[in-house]
Amino acid sequence: MSATSTTRPGGRSSRVLSAVYSAVGALVGEGAERITFPVIAERAGVNPTTLYRRWGDVDELLEEVAVAALTRDGDELPDTGTLAGDLTEWALIVTRDITRPERARYLRAMVAARQDVVAHCEVTDTRLEQASALIRRADDRDEAVPTAEQVLDHVIAPLYYRVAFALPVDEERPRRLVRDVLRMIAPIR
Amino acid sequence: MSATSTTRPGGRSSRVLSAVYSAVGALVGEGAERITFPVIAERAGVNPTTLYRRWGDVDELLEEVAVAALTRDGDELPDTGTLAGDLTEWALIVTRDITRPERARYLRAMVAARQDVVAHCEVTDTRLEQASALIRRADDRDEAVPTAEQVLDHVIAPLYYRVAFALPVDEERPRRLVRDVLRMIAPIR
Repeated sequence: MSATSTTRPGGRSSRVLSAVYSAVGALVGEGAERITFPVIAERAGVNPTTLYRRWGDVDELLEEVAVAALTRDGDELPDTGTLAGDLTEWALIVTRDITRPERARYLRAMVAARQDVVAHCEVTDTRLEQASALIRRADDRDEAVPTAEQVLDHVIAPLYYRVAFALPVDEERPRRLVRDVLRMIAPIR
Repeated sequence: MSATSTTRPGGRSSRVLSAVYSAVGALVGEGAERITFPVIAERAGVNPTTLYRRWGDVDELLEEVAVAALTRDGDELPDTGTLAGDLTEWALIVTRDITRPERARYLRAMVAARQDVVAHCEVTDTRLEQASALIRRADDRDEAVPTAEQVLDHVIAPLYYRVAFALPVDEERPRRLVRDVLRMIAPIR
């Protein structure tokens, strides 16, 4: 056994991680009031010490699971051949994903866990990277493009805002948000 | 004494309300872990029964206080003579207000209290009304105007999103968001 075996996919560490993530997911999904290390450990069938050692703080673990749940919508970004098509498909994927009740609960749990201002947020960073990839491709095709920050502010933020405040989001909204952001970069008279 | 004396401003009900709101504000401000009716009642110096009778559910009370805290930024909407000026001033007022640490905590507490999808949210409704008032005035001056929903999605949502996720918001952001939303309604070639 090499020293790296604890992080090898399929190894002990990976099984523990999967059990812990599932336990957190189930507890959040059930709307559990107090999610503590002992509660998670019992559900996951692991030693609480493992959790204390790895995450230090239960909020850290909750945030890690929330980020994983909130950004892994699938492996591939859409590739329709136009920025309008890509952004629309992507915004629809994000919408379907974050409006699922258990994802919406994660999102709110993540907001609730935040205390002071953070330098950056992994959910935001992941969405920025995805937006940047779509923009880069459009730019290579010589399309007019918004900035990734504009896509974050005008497409992603309104969707997350609505889910955070538990407001309904139908599929017309992401479509309109994308039309709006593209309208921002249309040549003006 | 008439039957309406309990709701008279300055009457007993108003004093209780003020004490309860202050207690909730202080507890949220201190980052209290569990805010329950008994905890609030003790801090406010009122009988817990009063709270159970009036609010039924602690989340309902927290949300009421949060809405009050998150929408009363002042009595007057800006009136600068142009939509660009009004939206910019208003977005700056909202930004300064919701980024204050105790307001940001309220906002997160409010998100955390949400369970299932709601038909409407008072914070959102209040912002929509304010946006509508500014738009109506601009429309009366024959300016080109966005819809109130567009202002909500593209100016308010990105600001609340950042505060909810505890991301920093400098004053350039609301200015840019307003420029972006006005760019959306500029005549295209």
